[in-house]
Amino acid sequence: MDIKAQILEIAEEARKAANILARIPSDVKNKALQDMAEALVARSDRLIEVNARDLEEAEKSGLSRTMIDRLTLNGKTIAAIAAGLTDVAGLPDPVGEITKMWRRPNGLTVGRMRIPLGVIGFIYESRPNVTADAAALCLKSGNAVILRGGSEAIHSNRAIVEILQGVLQQSIIPQGAIQLIQTTDRQAIHEMLQLDEQIDLIIPRGGEDLIRAVVKDSKIPVIKHYKGVCHIFVDADADLDMAYAICLNAKVQRPGVCNAMETLLIHRDIAPRFLPVMAEKFRQAGVILRGCEKSRNICPEIEGATEEDWYMEYLDLKLAVRVVDDLDDAVSHIEKYGSLHTESIITKDYAHAQRFLNEVNSSTVLVNASTRFSDGFELGLGAEIGISTTKLQAFGPMGLEELTTTKFIIYGNGQVRT
Amino acid sequence: MDIKAQILEIAEEARKAANILARIPSDVKNKALQDMAEALVARSDRLIEVNARDLEEAEKSGLSRTMIDRLTLNGKTIAAIAAGLTDVAGLPDPVGEITKMWRRPNGLTVGRMRIPLGVIGFIYESRPNVTADAAALCLKSGNAVILRGGSEAIHSNRAIVEILQGVLQQSIIPQGAIQLIQTTDRQAIHEMLQLDEQIDLIIPRGGEDLIRAVVKDSKIPVIKHYKGVCHIFVDADADLDMAYAICLNAKVQRPGVCNAMETLLIHRDIAPRFLPVMAEKFRQAGVILRGCEKSRNICPEIEGATEEDWYMEYLDLKLAVRVVDDLDDAVSHIEKYGSLHTESIITKDYAHAQRFLNEVNSSTVLVNASTRFSDGFELGLGAEIGISTTKLQAFGPMGLEELTTTKFIIYGNGQVRT
Repeated sequence: MDIKAQILEIAEEARKAANILARIPSDVKNKALQDMAEALVARSDRLIEVNARDLEEAEKSGLSRTMIDRLTLNGKTIAAIAAGLTDVAGLPDPVGEITKMWRRPNGLTVGRMRIPLGVIGFIYESRPNVTADAAALCLKSGNAVILRGGSEAIHSNRAIVEILQGVLQQSIIPQGAIQLIQTTDRQAIHEMLQLDEQIDLIIPRGGEDLIRAVVKDSKIPVIKHYKGVCHIFVDADADLDMAYAICLNAKVQRPGVCNAMETLLIHRDIAPRFLPVMAEKFRQAGVILRGCEKSRNICPEIEGATEEDWYMEYLDLKLAVRVVDDLDDAVSHIEKYGSLHTESIITKDYAHAQRFLNEVNSSTVLVNASTRFSDGFELGLGAEIGISTTKLQAFGPMGLEELTTTKFIIYGNGQVRT
Repeated sequence: MDIKAQILEIAEEARKAANILARIPSDVKNKALQDMAEALVARSDRLIEVNARDLEEAEKSGLSRTMIDRLTLNGKTIAAIAAGLTDVAGLPDPVGEITKMWRRPNGLTVGRMRIPLGVIGFIYESRPNVTADAAALCLKSGNAVILRGGSEAIHSNRAIVEILQGVLQQSIIPQGAIQLIQTTDRQAIHEMLQLDEQIDLIIPRGGEDLIRAVVKDSKIPVIKHYKGVCHIFVDADADLDMAYAICLNAKVQRPGVCNAMETLLIHRDIAPRFLPVMAEKFRQAGVILRGCEKSRNICPEIEGATEEDWYMEYLDLKLAVRVVDDLDDAVSHIEKYGSLHTESIITKDYAHAQRFLNEVNSSTVLVNASTRFSDGFELGLGAEIGISTTKLQAFGPMGLEELTTTKFIIYGNGQVRT
C-alpha cells in the first residue's frame, strides 16, 4: 500500500474511533489511562531495550547531547511518563460539562455542552514522552489522535504506542483512538495535512521551521506557536528587589524555553538605579546583554543591540534591553516586536498594573510575576498539550478544555417558531 | 494602484484600527452604534436613491424576484437596519469580560479575559442589511472588519459604509475599523484570502459554492457552514399532537433557511399511526415527501427516495422521510448523512431525551422543539453573525462572544518559578 493510502486508512480509522470515543464515559477512559501507566512501567525493560536502538542511531548520526538526553528512556523517565498518565486520569473530564444554561422567554432551556473536537493530528519532534502525553490528553478529552513523532524516536514511539494499544484492546475504546504513523517518510506528513474531511485539527510541536512548514502545507486548521519573544517591563516605581528576582528567574531559570524573557524594558526614571545592579546580577549568571543607546549610556559594558535583536527569541543566556519613556512606550514596543506570547509588568502602581493587563493582548499577561508561569501546569489547567499564539480556538497554554468545543443543547416542551 | 496593493492597504489599515479598537470602552462603541442608527434613518432618501441604481441593474440582469426583494431598501427596511444597530448597542460588551478566575497554591490569581480576535474578513451575498449588521457586530466585539458584499448591492453598500464611516469620523474610533472593498472585481477576494498576517478570521455567508471556493483559496482560517441537513426523530412514544405541530413548523414555516427540517425519521412502532396523519398535513401544506420503502408501505402516495435524498438540503417544500428501527438507528442515520447543523427528538421518554442530547454531536440538539430555533436571536445570543458547522472557535450560531478569544491575566506579588 502506498503512503497516501496508508495515511487515509489511518485517518478514516481515527474518524470512526472518534465517533465512538466521544460517547465513552469518564470512568472507562480513566481506567484505560491508569492501565496504560501500569503497562508502561511493567514493560520498562522492553522499552529501554528498544530505546537503545534509537540512541545507537542517534549517536551514529551525531545528534547533540541535549537531543540525546531528551530521547533517553530509563526507569526514572518511564516512571515520570506513567505518573503523567495517572495525573491525566485524575483530571476532570471536560466532555459533557455544561458551561452555561439559561431559560428563554418561550420556556426553552438552552445550554452549552462541551464535546470533543474529533480527530487531532499531532506532529512533534524527538521526545518519546510526548507520545504518551499527547495520547493521554487526547483520549481524556474524547479525541482520536494520529501521532507523528520525530524519526529519531521511531523505535521508542512504536513500542510505546504498541503498549497503549494493548490496553485499548482490553477496553471498549476502539484502537483507532490512538494511532502512530509507522513510516518515517516525510511524505506521510504531507498526506496527513491534506485530509481535512477526516482530521479536525493539527497541533505541531517543535521549532519554528517545522511549524511554518506545517502551516504552509496544511488544509486543516493548525494551532500555531511560532516563538515566544517574552517581555518584562520594569515600571518607574517597581519594587526593585522584586524586579531583580523576577527578571533573573525569567531569564536564567530555564533559558531554552518559550516562556523565558527575551527582552527587558525599563522605565527611564528607574533605569539609572535599576540597570547597573540588574546588569551585574545577569553578568554573574552568565547572561549577555544587548541594549539600546540609553541603556549603554548607563552601563557602557552592554553590547549594542540592532533592530533585529528586538525580534529575537534567543532561547539562550542572552537578553535584549531597552530603556523606554513610559508605560505607553513599553506597550507600543511589545505590540510592534512581540509574538503575542507572554509579557509581565513589575510595578507598585495600581493604575499601571490594570492598564497593562487590559491593554496588552498577548496570550498571557502578568503583574509582578515571572513569565515562566505561562504554562498549563503552572496556571492550573492540569496539563498542557501546547501553547497557541494565534487567537482561534485557543490562545495561550492549552489544556483539556481547549481540545473541546461546545454544542447547544435545548430542552423544550413543544415550542414552535411563529 | 492595482487590486493587490489596494487590498493590502485596506488590511493594514484594519490591523492598525483593530489594535486601537480593542481598547475602546463600551460606551464609546455604543454611542457610535446609536449614532449610526440615527444617521441611516436621517439619510434614508439618499439610500433609497442609490439603492434604485442597484435595483435597476438587477432588473436588467434578470435577477430573481426573491433576490430583488432582498436587495430593496425602503423606509421600512432602513428602519429595521437602524433598529438592529440599536439592539447591538444594547447588548453586553464581551470585551474585558472575565470568564473565570482562580487562585493558585503559590498565591497567583489567574483569570481569563475576553479580547477581540482582531481583523475579520466578511464575505457575503446580495442583502445590503448584512453590511450594517456585520459592521455593528464586529465593532461591538472590538474587531475591525473588511466587508466584501455582492456586486448586485455595491451602490447600496458603498452608501451605507459611507454613512457608518461618517459617524466614526466624529468619534475616537479609527475609520479603518469598518471598511468596504470598493471594487467588484473577484480578484479582490483572492487577494484578501492570502493576507494571513493581517486578517485573523474569514466569515463567508452565502451559498455552499461560495463557501467552498473561499475555503479552498484561503490561507486564513474560515468559519464554515456548508449546509443544514436538519433531522427530526419522532420516537415511539412521542406526543403525537406535539410531533405534528413541530414537524410542520420545522418544514413549512420558512423552508428556504438552513435550520428547516430536511429529513424526518420515524420510529417504526409509531410510524403506522403517525405517518398517515402527518403526510396528510404535509400534503395540505404543499410539501412533497420522498420516503424509504417502509414509509411507502404505510403511505403508498409517498415518492420513492434515493440514496441522494438523505444528503439533500432541499431548501424547499420537499422532505425526505425514513422509518427507523430505534433510537440507535436514528442516531446512526444522523451521523452518516447529517451536516452537524441541527437535530431534534420528539419523545416522552426521559432516557431517550438524555441519550439524544448526549450522543448527537451536531451544533444544536433539541428535545421537543422545532429545529427552527437554531438561531442566535432565538437562543438568546442577542445577535447572530453566522452559523458554524465546524468545531473550531465556534460551533453553531455565533454571537458576539464567538468573535472573541480569551487571554490569561495573572495577578502576582513577586512569584518566581523554582
